[in-house]
Amino acid sequence: MSDDQQQNDFRQKALDYHAQPTAGKIAIALTKPADTAEDLALAYSPGVAEPVREIALNPDNAYKYTAKGNTVAVISNGTAILGLGNLGPLASKPVMEGKALLFKRFAGLDSIDIQVKHRTIDEFVDTVANIADTFGGINLEDIKAPDCFEIERQLIERCDVPVFHDDQHGTAIVTAAGMLNAIELQGKKLSECKIVCLGAGAAAVACMELLIKCGALREKIYMLDRKGVIHTRRDDLNEYKQLFANNTDMRTLEDVIAGADLFLGVSGPNLLPPEALALMADKPVVFACSNPDPEIKPELAAKVRNDLIMGTGRSDYPNQVNNVICFPFIFRGALDVRASEINTEMKLAAVEAIRQLAKQEVPAEVLKAAGVESLSFGPDYIIPKPMDPRLLSEVAGAVARAAVESGVARIELPEEYKR
Amino acid sequence: MSDDQQQNDFRQKALDYHAQPTAGKIAIALTKPADTAEDLALAYSPGVAEPVREIALNPDNAYKYTAKGNTVAVISNGTAILGLGNLGPLASKPVMEGKALLFKRFAGLDSIDIQVKHRTIDEFVDTVANIADTFGGINLEDIKAPDCFEIERQLIERCDVPVFHDDQHGTAIVTAAGMLNAIELQGKKLSECKIVCLGAGAAAVACMELLIKCGALREKIYMLDRKGVIHTRRDDLNEYKQLFANNTDMRTLEDVIAGADLFLGVSGPNLLPPEALALMADKPVVFACSNPDPEIKPELAAKVRNDLIMGTGRSDYPNQVNNVICFPFIFRGALDVRASEINTEMKLAAVEAIRQLAKQEVPAEVLKAAGVESLSFGPDYIIPKPMDPRLLSEVAGAVARAAVESGVARIELPEEYKR
Repeated sequence: MSDDQQQNDFRQKALDYHAQPTAGKIAIALTKPADTAEDLALAYSPGVAEPVREIALNPDNAYKYTAKGNTVAVISNGTAILGLGNLGPLASKPVMEGKALLFKRFAGLDSIDIQVKHRTIDEFVDTVANIADTFGGINLEDIKAPDCFEIERQLIERCDVPVFHDDQHGTAIVTAAGMLNAIELQGKKLSECKIVCLGAGAAAVACMELLIKCGALREKIYMLDRKGVIHTRRDDLNEYKQLFANNTDMRTLEDVIAGADLFLGVSGPNLLPPEALALMADKPVVFACSNPDPEIKPELAAKVRNDLIMGTGRSDYPNQVNNVICFPFIFRGALDVRASEINTEMKLAAVEAIRQLAKQEVPAEVLKAAGVESLSFGPDYIIPKPMDPRLLSEVAGAVARAAVESGVARIELPEEYKR
Repeated sequence: MSDDQQQNDFRQKALDYHAQPTAGKIAIALTKPADTAEDLALAYSPGVAEPVREIALNPDNAYKYTAKGNTVAVISNGTAILGLGNLGPLASKPVMEGKALLFKRFAGLDSIDIQVKHRTIDEFVDTVANIADTFGGINLEDIKAPDCFEIERQLIERCDVPVFHDDQHGTAIVTAAGMLNAIELQGKKLSECKIVCLGAGAAAVACMELLIKCGALREKIYMLDRKGVIHTRRDDLNEYKQLFANNTDMRTLEDVIAGADLFLGVSGPNLLPPEALALMADKPVVFACSNPDPEIKPELAAKVRNDLIMGTGRSDYPNQVNNVICFPFIFRGALDVRASEINTEMKLAAVEAIRQLAKQEVPAEVLKAAGVESLSFGPDYIIPKPMDPRLLSEVAGAVARAAVESGVARIELPEEYKR
């Protein structure tokens, strides 16, 4: 089969998967018997009046008598769908249902997608805040920058349940975990690293902010948008880019990449030329996360130099930066202690749990699922695999403990998370 | 056991049902495989981009590639929960999850509940309209009158999918079906009936409007609210009550009930005194739908006169007026032809299908589920039983055909509904 034929074949498979035998990927299941008249008298009238009264007396009883506490809404306005751009809310539905599928598959969370039409940021925020009590947590998704920053800020303020923009923080957590492991292997200290971030969208900003919380120095970060280096003499920067404006005369990728220790690409295909890669410091770390086509192909990078550690967004290369190893478990941990928010302590706990898991011996079932003979901590294995079943207890547990310790948990730590 | 003990026992059972072994009644299920890396490549990245592109090209493809077409949102603001009043959105959650359970159990529809906080009617409408595209249809629930009328009117105008306030129209359809069968048995014509409606809320107004569409004369209807008869000289009537203002000197229930053929109670316990019942015309029809305690107990009514046909909201008396024999199926029929709305033709088709089903021979399994030896069309059986499996094809089919014939269907009639 030619490449074109293979691509067409995969396309058709993907469409068939979504259409056959029923449309879509998720459905509702009943968790209680509903067969006899007596069942229905308990489930609906007149029995349902009892939990209604209990919740009216104390809203926390919604966690006891309804599905709220295990439910995550996946909410989008479709303004930045995958790498496809602003295609509107409805077109985002397959992605949001896909996210719901991943929540259920990996963390047993019941997740429902909601697509939101709106004219202004305020209207989006009002809409989501008005329905937020329905759910145990809210995962925002595929919302364009810089709107996503303001939207998340307002929603965190207005909602009683955790609000988490996965494109920002899920990406940032997995990236930080992988990068920290990579520079450890390269024998460097994050505070001493010169960092280049190609891309200045939601993921870029969140990744750099979290790296700073992990020890990176803001003045050693060079961020580039479509116009080049973000510097203090530009007058076209939104407030989020301004935080990364560097007081420098350098203007291009080639300028800033010289001597850089870390490169993060969250931009587009082939935007890191081999000549630029060659200019990086000894033992660099390169995360080329543009998907499906990275900023530089690993084969090409390997030809340029053999002292680098590389990550991509793809499953067919080593060191895949994949949000799925974070978001199901950070919500699982947050919901299991009814955290009021997902704070920095919880994000850093997730980073550390992911880092440590990559250093542990890999069980046979994970090797089998990954289709490899062995995996051990090193340049080609710095991030756990998506199918690793240990992620659930390790990441969710670390997040839940951090929620309790930082004072945002509303119930005690479940027994199974105690150390 | 004493009555009190029995009641406490049932209360505890209802709470346990909702809390054990997991909180609530519904969960998410995956309808597609999600076990291997290949499955996930189809369900999420990169495969999910294909249905996204198809929906961006044509929004109708959302019905092909996502769960939209089989999904009904059950939406409430909690301002009129059951008979319990305005307890706020969150307290309505067990009822809304119960409704979702009934949608799934009876019509295979995937239904998810959404609770909405809001300050104004417009804000509620904006919120629901903004998320409406997510779903195949919207079932409004437990919203107080008169807000519910304006809310439904605006949402029908703004949404591309059917919007249906079940407390109004589900109740009206089942009531009309039962009443039409009852007056047929009593040998009367609806256009000649004097009608008394005790109660002037959402259900009352909708029932009377639908009876008028079935042939009742507006001037022969006497509606009463808490202050008595609604008449043209009152200056405290909202626009919905005004439609039923009668040019009459009669002021009390006792005044208007004399010679009435039909009584509908959607008010409160024991509000139809036996002396009033005695004043009705020969062969009257009395639907005492206050729940759990009807406007007059059937035992008491039977002592007053033996020529009446009676219905209540309770399952332990004959002729239960129960919305569940309508709403799952009216949505099933509407969604199966992608109706843009649920119009009067579809409601009348549902009335007729329910009427006719009550006249057909009852299968053994229905008798068994109802715990009776026999059921045949007559004073004690004018409405099909909730557990009757024929409701699905009969009511959904009639509704789907009416949608096609009245021009609101967006796809052809499915083969199984063709006559």
